[in-house]
Amino acid sequence: MAKTALVVSAHSADFVWRCGGAIALHQEKGYEVTVVCLSYGERGESAKLWKQDGMTLEKVKAARRTEAENAAAALGVHDIQFFDCGDYPLELDREAKYRLVDVIRKVQPAFMMSHSQWDPYNTDHMYATTVALEARMIAQAWGHNPGEKVLGAPQLYLFEPHQTEQMKWKPDVFLDISPVWEKKWNAIKCMEGQEHLWHYYENVGENRGNHFMRNSGGQSGGRKATHAEGFQSIFPRTVDEL
Amino acid sequence: MAKTALVVSAHSADFVWRCGGAIALHQEKGYEVTVVCLSYGERGESAKLWKQDGMTLEKVKAARRTEAENAAAALGVHDIQFFDCGDYPLELDREAKYRLVDVIRKVQPAFMMSHSQWDPYNTDHMYATTVALEARMIAQAWGHNPGEKVLGAPQLYLFEPHQTEQMKWKPDVFLDISPVWEKKWNAIKCMEGQEHLWHYYENVGENRGNHFMRNSGGQSGGRKATHAEGFQSIFPRTVDEL
Amino acid sequence: MAKTALVVSAHSADFVWRCGGAIALHQEKGYEVTVVCLSYGERGESAKLWKQDGMTLEKVKAARRTEAENAAAALGVHDIQFFDCGDYPLELDREAKYRLVDVIRKVQPAFMMSHSQWDPYNTDHMYATTVALEARMIAQAWGHNPGEKVLGAPQLYLFEPHQTEQMKWKPDVFLDISPVWEKKWNAIKCMEGQEHLWHYYENVGENRGNHFMRNSGGQSGGRKATHAEGFQSIFPRTVDEL
Amino acid sequence: MAKTALVVSAHSADFVWRCGGAIALHQEKGYEVTVVCLSYGERGESAKLWKQDGMTLEKVKAARRTEAENAAAALGVHDIQFFDCGDYPLELDREAKYRLVDVIRKVQPAFMMSHSQWDPYNTDHMYATTVALEARMIAQAWGHNPGEKVLGAPQLYLFEPHQTEQMKWKPDVFLDISPVWEKKWNAIKCMEGQEHLWHYYENVGENRGNHFMRNSGGQSGGRKATHAEGFQSIFPRTVDEL
Amino acid sequence: MAKTALVVSAHSADFVWRCGGAIALHQEKGYEVTVVCLSYGERGESAKLWKQDGMTLEKVKAARRTEAENAAAALGVHDIQFFDCGDYPLELDREAKYRLVDVIRKVQPAFMMSHSQWDPYNTDHMYATTVALEARMIAQAWGHNPGEKVLGAPQLYLFEPHQTEQMKWKPDVFLDISPVWEKKWNAIKCMEGQEHLWHYYENVGENRGNHFMRNSGGQSGGRKATHAEGFQSIFPRTVDEL
Amino acid sequence: MAKTALVVSAHSADFVWRCGGAIALHQEKGYEVTVVCLSYGERGESAKLWKQDGMTLEKVKAARRTEAENAAAALGVHDIQFFDCGDYPLELDREAKYRLVDVIRKVQPAFMMSHSQWDPYNTDHMYATTVALEARMIAQAWGHNPGEKVLGAPQLYLFEPHQTEQMKWKPDVFLDISPVWEKKWNAIKCMEGQEHLWHYYENVGENRGNHFMRNSGGQSGGRKATHAEGFQSIFPRTVDEL
Repeated sequence: MAKTALVVSAHSADFVWRCGGAIALHQEKGYEVTVVCLSYGERGESAKLWKQDGMTLEKVKAARRTEAENAAAALGVHDIQFFDCGDYPLELDREAKYRLVDVIRKVQPAFMMSHSQWDPYNTDHMYATTVALEARMIAQAWGHNPGEKVLGAPQLYLFEPHQTEQMKWKPDVFLDISPVWEKKWNAIKCMEGQEHLWHYYENVGENRGNHFMRNSGGQSGGRKATHAEGFQSIFPRTVDEL
Repeated sequence: MAKTALVVSAHSADFVWRCGGAIALHQEKGYEVTVVCLSYGERGESAKLWKQDGMTLEKVKAARRTEAENAAAALGVHDIQFFDCGDYPLELDREAKYRLVDVIRKVQPAFMMSHSQWDPYNTDHMYATTVALEARMIAQAWGHNPGEKVLGAPQLYLFEPHQTEQMKWKPDVFLDISPVWEKKWNAIKCMEGQEHLWHYYENVGENRGNHFMRNSGGQSGGRKATHAEGFQSIFPRTVDEL
Repeated sequence: MAKTALVVSAHSADFVWRCGGAIALHQEKGYEVTVVCLSYGERGESAKLWKQDGMTLEKVKAARRTEAENAAAALGVHDIQFFDCGDYPLELDREAKYRLVDVIRKVQPAFMMSHSQWDPYNTDHMYATTVALEARMIAQAWGHNPGEKVLGAPQLYLFEPHQTEQMKWKPDVFLDISPVWEKKWNAIKCMEGQEHLWHYYENVGENRGNHFMRNSGGQSGGRKATHAEGFQSIFPRTVDEL
Repeated sequence: MAKTALVVSAHSADFVWRCGGAIALHQEKGYEVTVVCLSYGERGESAKLWKQDGMTLEKVKAARRTEAENAAAALGVHDIQFFDCGDYPLELDREAKYRLVDVIRKVQPAFMMSHSQWDPYNTDHMYATTVALEARMIAQAWGHNPGEKVLGAPQLYLFEPHQTEQMKWKPDVFLDISPVWEKKWNAIKCMEGQEHLWHYYENVGENRGNHFMRNSGGQSGGRKATHAEGFQSIFPRTVDEL
Repeated sequence: MAKTALVVSAHSADFVWRCGGAIALHQEKGYEVTVVCLSYGERGESAKLWKQDGMTLEKVKAARRTEAENAAAALGVHDIQFFDCGDYPLELDREAKYRLVDVIRKVQPAFMMSHSQWDPYNTDHMYATTVALEARMIAQAWGHNPGEKVLGAPQLYLFEPHQTEQMKWKPDVFLDISPVWEKKWNAIKCMEGQEHLWHYYENVGENRGNHFMRNSGGQSGGRKATHAEGFQSIFPRTVDEL
Repeated sequence: MAKTALVVSAHSADFVWRCGGAIALHQEKGYEVTVVCLSYGERGESAKLWKQDGMTLEKVKAARRTEAENAAAALGVHDIQFFDCGDYPLELDREAKYRLVDVIRKVQPAFMMSHSQWDPYNTDHMYATTVALEARMIAQAWGHNPGEKVLGAPQLYLFEPHQTEQMKWKPDVFLDISPVWEKKWNAIKCMEGQEHLWHYYENVGENRGNHFMRNSGGQSGGRKATHAEGFQSIFPRTVDEL
């Protein structure tokens, strides 16, 4: 049976910049990765589109959806779902939360991913994480839709926010994404509306590669990684060997 | 070539309560584990001995050393070294620090272990960790005893202190020590001078086993662990799969 | 006039594990202790019941209520109220919050108790504390139901969560519950659906007793306490002698 | 074109105690300062009024409004708006949030001000800051009321709460309000219902003046400031000279 | 047998501003309070004296000592000792630390007091607290001067620093010093060299009185205290009633 | 009279990567910038040199000094001083600290710069900041070398460490170094022994430029900066306008 993972993305582009490498890498390892985009980022993260004449909310959503689907294809995403809950602000009612619970239970992810816990620039981001934790809890409840398979206890990884130091985000794991960097770069280039961010995240990928090396063996012999991604874990790990 | 690990213990009994399970488990997995006891805890952690008539500092040290050696044997410690730097307060001069650097370079540990970073009850504990970090850095320097093999970048795990919540200690990894609990229990019983702590750490082992289960699969199906130990990591991990 | 206290429990069993000793002890000292169970924990904390054939939400609630009432009786609870607001997730609307305000004003507690402020495993717990603080504030407002006696400024104690270090919980007071441990143990045994937790909380009680001793007089002569409970205070104390 | 600033005040008196000096000072420098009072503090901060016979909610609101308008006039506030969202608890629905967004966009503030991020005594305060951040984000969204001028990236200053140390509030900037202290004092004296706080905030103003001096040049020659106000910044500054 | 307390003051004036009220109050309650001044503050806290012609280090020390003795007398200090370890920077060698241990053991304090744990303006202050914790630990060691009575586990209270918010200092207890304010004021006036601080600490005393009231019963009926002092506790309390 | 600034660098290359832009920019604005290199980083930060045959400590120091002097020239450093205190570990005795105090007093800097307060990889870095704070304090003491001009209260900026999130470092100010990027790049290229870091810090400079823009006006119109540097302030600012 395939291993699985689930990404909860506040806006439809977040998963690309922040964990595109993890998605592509795990896809190559046989994981089926599901991405839930809670909104399209249609109001708040589509400035370039809104500057065009005759733009409407539906046109923005459609364009954003296409970009996200293209990026997902480039990364080998197994399934991408658009909840269309609205952005700036993002809000999920009880029904939308239960829809997320349904996805979690169906996927039974080995690990989940979402945003940093603090983001004063973008309250949608931290709201997404709050919802991810709440939905994770509900998915574990035997009394929620009794008879369904309940969720175990997957890790929740917080992927890298913009301006990490302002977000109280501290990575405790670096993932070597060198083998799939080209896939991530191709996915990034699908984000036509945010071209000003391409080079920024190229730099991030390279510098996280440096951090990988610094921690994998020291200044004088660490294994080389050209690109990496960092993640912060919410829950402790359970291991049989340190 | 054998895998190795290094424990830096402020007083001669600390390694037993706090990471005896990790030692025994990794010994069974083929690791050679070295323990450095920076002091015997002869002044500050030997109340029971000092209450005996005719006690002297040398007698206390000898008794503490014997207990520690017995415990080390019970755990399968590869090498135990006593630096005899004095306790309450513990202090290492430059020479003693370089001695620790020598041990680190000789062992080339896959991981190191020491105390929590804060302990208002026992300043020796946090001092030991400060020294461990400093010695780790020196061991990485190409200009320290040029020609020797420099250290890579081993993880430093902080083992469980007494009264964890007062020590700003948060475990991010739980190690299942169920297979070696009997060995740890036998080592604990070597600590004849601190019998009042035996049951306390038996409880800790059991309750950390519960925490292991809570995180290994959730309330309804996590793998059972009768005993576990918790550790806090100082450095990020570097991985190829999350 | 009797002294009073108020416990705000997210689910119907929380008050037993986390502050059963404080309840029994203060009852013996003449306090009237009121417990408000915001939910029964019927969906999320009743796995054992849900595994039985033919189980329904109402049956689970009834069973959970009976267990909680039995435990309350064992502890000498003065009044236990079930708000039945639902769990996983717990949510109180304006009316339910005002109902809690009514209870607070009626009880006029010398101190209140609720959960830790952070719990990524169980968002109901931190929500309960958020509501407790909000209701405490409303109860102090002269313009809320003018004419009623407004609330003073009771302490809010946060009782011990599961996996304390993951919850950013730090106890600043240990209460000796040795005299009432038998009552707490009897109350714990009323929780038939969660027998796997009995021994865990027995260990907690014993080890907190050790912490009590460590702080009540030092390693060599602290007053013995067989069992204790720890609490974190939200507000500063006001005293006439340190 | 006039420079502008915007204060988001949970209750109608907060802006006086906490940033009255900043308002008066910037008014003298040519800023147009807008104050939004999300509520009148009619239920929770009007004890003195409620102790009078025959008091009603509308009478309290009217009295509070008059006091706030008088204080605003004393400080030279450009525009004061009363959202009348209710207090204890304060809550803004989507419509009220969008009303705040409208104000932000119209004002296009060089900086915004609101409460500390944590206040266990008064959850309205931290709620106001949460709303201020959310509204700031929405005001930046090109897709919110397309065609309107979107917001840039103004600083959000958190003004001084009561009992600063309990509120996790740390000022990183002290503003010399010596030239306008008389105006602030006159505004304070408009707060007839809270006369018990006048002297308290006089002391605060003086002692913050001392802090200004300690940081402006040291113990032996810092520029004298008789009164100052402290603020905590949420966002980093961007400068051309340190 | 008299109850006792011990204050560890980095410079000879610190104890007056920061805990003069606590000293006077406990003296009236029958405590014998010992004050240890680790230095005179002769280099760094005597600017006014150094501005006089012909000043020497010995003259400054003598003047500072006289002021401290006068203040101690005004407060009813039982014993004041001057360790003369030097200031800016303050440093204690092993011998000086053992001298402090001797005092602690002789006094057997019910509680100790010292500075905040962080002070970027004045590293002597945090050093004093570091030393106080280390000496407390040594005083508990049965192997330090065997035969002497070892120390129990007294609380260490951190008294109020200047610019509290910059010092990571959070008071968790407010002590009503209204009955002894006149004594504290008289002691303050003994500090002739730092007259610029008199009014500052008068304001602090008044405003802490306000904080006492806010926490002792709420906005509508808390017991009045004209003056108070705040303290942060390092260790948890152990109690029989909450 | 020229404005001045002072950089305290643990090793001789630190000032280039971490604040080379600030140095060059302020030099162009008329500041005289002094750099103190406490060590050459001869043991711990010169791996490439040590891999050469026949290398000695003196040769390494000489090479490192030349590189630092070349970089200083490229940046327009007014004065660079080498204290040669040794590295891995770095330690300053009383005499060396007083030498630093002498420099501080002579320079009378408008602001100082040093390392982050926490660095588990490199304890020399945090030690340098500890020393910088201590020396700043001593330089303010009227009783230290009476008659000399005492120091005011300059800001201490913490420049950017490697792996910022692991260092508890949060920038609160971004400085636009676009106009002097070429100078910084030239200085970086003087660091021949650490060529593996050139591109890393090029990326840092670019991405901090992005952060500058994000904070200087928002997503839709912030002023462009191609490169920036971030700094964390230890002390609050004192201003006349926000």
